[in-house]
Amino acid sequence: MTDANPLLDDRDVAFLLHDVHDASALCALPAFAMHPKMRVMFTALADAGVLAATRPFEVGGQQLPSLVYTAASAYLCAGNSSAAGLAMLTSEAAHLIESFGSDELRARYVAPLYTGAMTGTMALTEPHAGSSLGDITTRATPHADGSYRISGAKIFISGGEHDLTDNIVHMVLARVEGAPRGTRGVSLFCVPKRRPDGALNDVRCAGVLHKIGWRALPSVALNFGEEGDCHGWLVGAAGRGLPQMFQMMNAARIGVGASAAATAYVAYQEALRYARSRPQGRALTARDGSSPQVLITAHPDVRRMLLRQKAIAEGALSLAFEAARFADLAEHAVDESERARARLLLDLLTPVVKTFPAERGFEANVLAVQVLGGYGYTSEYLPELWMRDQKLNSIHEGTTGIQSLDLLGRKVVAGGGEALRLWSEEVTRATREARAVGVEGAWCDAVDAAVGDVAALTMELGARGRSGDAEGMLAHATDYLDLMSTVVIAWQWIELAAVAHEALAGQLPRGHASCPLWPR
Amino acid sequence: MTDANPLLDDRDVAFLLHDVHDASALCALPAFAMHPKMRVMFTALADAGVLAATRPFEVGGQQLPSLVYTAASAYLCAGNSSAAGLAMLTSEAAHLIESFGSDELRARYVAPLYTGAMTGTMALTEPHAGSSLGDITTRATPHADGSYRISGAKIFISGGEHDLTDNIVHMVLARVEGAPRGTRGVSLFCVPKRRPDGALNDVRCAGVLHKIGWRALPSVALNFGEEGDCHGWLVGAAGRGLPQMFQMMNAARIGVGASAAATAYVAYQEALRYARSRPQGRALTARDGSSPQVLITAHPDVRRMLLRQKAIAEGALSLAFEAARFADLAEHAVDESERARARLLLDLLTPVVKTFPAERGFEANVLAVQVLGGYGYTSEYLPELWMRDQKLNSIHEGTTGIQSLDLLGRKVVAGGGEALRLWSEEVTRATREARAVGVEGAWCDAVDAAVGDVAALTMELGARGRSGDAEGMLAHATDYLDLMSTVVIAWQWIELAAVAHEALAGQLPRGHASCPLWPR
Repeated sequence: MTDANPLLDDRDVAFLLHDVHDASALCALPAFAMHPKMRVMFTALADAGVLAATRPFEVGGQQLPSLVYTAASAYLCAGNSSAAGLAMLTSEAAHLIESFGSDELRARYVAPLYTGAMTGTMALTEPHAGSSLGDITTRATPHADGSYRISGAKIFISGGEHDLTDNIVHMVLARVEGAPRGTRGVSLFCVPKRRPDGALNDVRCAGVLHKIGWRALPSVALNFGEEGDCHGWLVGAAGRGLPQMFQMMNAARIGVGASAAATAYVAYQEALRYARSRPQGRALTARDGSSPQVLITAHPDVRRMLLRQKAIAEGALSLAFEAARFADLAEHAVDESERARARLLLDLLTPVVKTFPAERGFEANVLAVQVLGGYGYTSEYLPELWMRDQKLNSIHEGTTGIQSLDLLGRKVVAGGGEALRLWSEEVTRATREARAVGVEGAWCDAVDAAVGDVAALTMELGARGRSGDAEGMLAHATDYLDLMSTVVIAWQWIELAAVAHEALAGQLPRGHASCPLWPR
Repeated sequence: MTDANPLLDDRDVAFLLHDVHDASALCALPAFAMHPKMRVMFTALADAGVLAATRPFEVGGQQLPSLVYTAASAYLCAGNSSAAGLAMLTSEAAHLIESFGSDELRARYVAPLYTGAMTGTMALTEPHAGSSLGDITTRATPHADGSYRISGAKIFISGGEHDLTDNIVHMVLARVEGAPRGTRGVSLFCVPKRRPDGALNDVRCAGVLHKIGWRALPSVALNFGEEGDCHGWLVGAAGRGLPQMFQMMNAARIGVGASAAATAYVAYQEALRYARSRPQGRALTARDGSSPQVLITAHPDVRRMLLRQKAIAEGALSLAFEAARFADLAEHAVDESERARARLLLDLLTPVVKTFPAERGFEANVLAVQVLGGYGYTSEYLPELWMRDQKLNSIHEGTTGIQSLDLLGRKVVAGGGEALRLWSEEVTRATREARAVGVEGAWCDAVDAAVGDVAALTMELGARGRSGDAEGMLAHATDYLDLMSTVVIAWQWIELAAVAHEALAGQLPRGHASCPLWPR
């Protein structure tokens, strides 16, 4: 329970606000509600089975490969990242309970979440501890009935309050009293907005963040246990909160990457459509001012802007698909060594998949605005919306700085370089196969050389780390991620080029059922 | 006069809208008016003499060097780019009339504009002809009284309608009937909102663009002569519209650069202030989770983001000052050869001054948002506003693509390389002086080598152009500008380093009265 407010009595105000004047009824008015289209979109997503698409039949899922789900979700994210984001959060909250929850919790929440009858959240961040999860202070006190009483404040909780569903299931990181300091003392709790007996739990929305994008998905501050009566249930073992939450965070990071790729891609498509219909000026070589204006696709600089968007957006989307494929193999490959290999590659690529589509995708989104010129600077056209939406992707689910530390410090150096070695093998195989089907040798050579550059830089930075100069190593983590990402995307483009070459030569490669380059 | 609307009769609607129901009175209501602070800010700017700061005493100016004015305007732009922008437009409209207008026009408008009793606009852009000014179709028909009747539509006119002053003076590009096609047929007209006899001129606001930034400065579509009775007055000679307008455009381009530098700079300051007050996480080398959190300035990646902002923002501001200094010398140096030299350097640098602070400044503004993390993504904090404001600067007053063609095609190649040679001399002198006062030799060598790279690339692209492959040359114009800009900013930093070195050594250099590095 918080201290009494010295100015007005909190209980009296709450009595007047909620009991006498029914403040929450006002929130049902259109001006205070979620965008009405959100209900339409989320319902459609849920009805289509998107929330449990990759889950097994036993829990009501469609048991689809992640790769297929990622392709489908790219359309959904391009259509509306907020609706797709709420679906993803809900799906991953259910997945946590499915993986780690007690039978009772599974029976209570898994089906309602996977069908969209409830929605879920990730309640990690606290005002004083954004990326530093070991510093969270939300407390969980054991109760005689086997549950816990939760007390603390969380911020930036997407979908943390809304009127779309009657119940919201918060997956909350908190410390059981007496737990050790740091990350090892953090446990995971399931804290529903409405308790199993139907009563409202003591979870209060303390404020709405005015985000500059993703406006249909409210991001709120939540207070748990203001009245000392917030019921929560432990998920999995005490002290295992963070490792368990990483199941959700890893999926979310790949999801963010796919969403970021889709956000860059849809803006590129729109810029291309605009450029193909907008006449202005004449060819650089035209001397005759009386000739008709040309389409702006005729201007080299517009082509440069469109091609750069294409390289980023299509490369990013391919990388998101590649990561999803590794996720499928990591879990379902028949051979354990293949599963282990895929897991290492997926772990290595996760920070890249999270970051490249967000950071370079933003560059692509800015270019889409620029292609539309003055019109692009207005909210009468969509590119500025996608630009705003995209900016969130370098911040949420671990900032670019955090991803960079994860890549260089944990995935590359701490792993002794094994993941990087496996990735080099993948790239080398790709360039070899590309050469064999006739892809420009100079491109393949450049990619091979770049892999060598990454290896050399890794050795140099790793040596600094081993000599005790961790800061001398990690100060370059973001630049390292940027370099690595560029080479990763080049690898994807070599793969695209090889398959396209085969297709153009009339060879339907690798059992692909169709190819956009295949003559029809 | 436009064709009658086939659905409703335009005259009847206008009669009902304006005469019966007094639509314009509604525009005086707060919801439809300019932000009330705009009146406070613009009045303060006008009262401080900002609008005529650089103009001669004879026209009511303060005859200040452009360098001093640019320093002052950087504060104003950092405070509010919209108010400073309206001041600049007004000042430059007055300057056009001062330079090219008849005695009658000068007597009528120069003083009211320079004192802020009226405001001015640049009415160039038409919906079908953004960057392609030779394609404008607004017509001017000579009238027996010596004036013209103007007819046409303009778009993206900043300050084109507002209730701040009773009169607005539009500087309009139009074609006198029978004028040649292309840019040589374009003339400049002065078209006031209110005619000399006090009657409203036939200039209608046809719509407001919903810009994503610069919200206090309305950008509107204007229709001239819907009723066939829009009075305009020729400024200067017929067919000289574009060369005359370039006086305004060149000043505006430097003004945009200074404003862009200020917008990057103020965001950097805010991000720095935030980082110095925000604790989170621990040093990379700290193993003890129980130690207090450190300020985020302790994290190498935050320092990287702040230093990159500093390099861009302070480098850009120094370049804006350098350009202003050349503008002063180009006009007022005693020696004609020195004036000519400064003019060439100013012309060469203008597209760089316009573009680097806008493009790389935007990168800096995005980093300011990133430093604030989730908070940066909300409109509760200012960095997102500066990010939105900054994006306009790569679009208005000639897009980055247009500036790039101007630099490579016109300023470098068409000029036979003379301007580039003079600039190389400036850089070489700067690195020589820097070495002499002890600036790190490797930095000076790197800048000298980069100037060599620019020269070599210029030769290669120039050769393509001379061989008839203009497109093969100009397709690289934007990348050329990016490279050139980087070297230009490096040159500025060498100058800063040299002066700072002297100051730190206790030598008060070049008569500077103060230096932030000077021990107090």
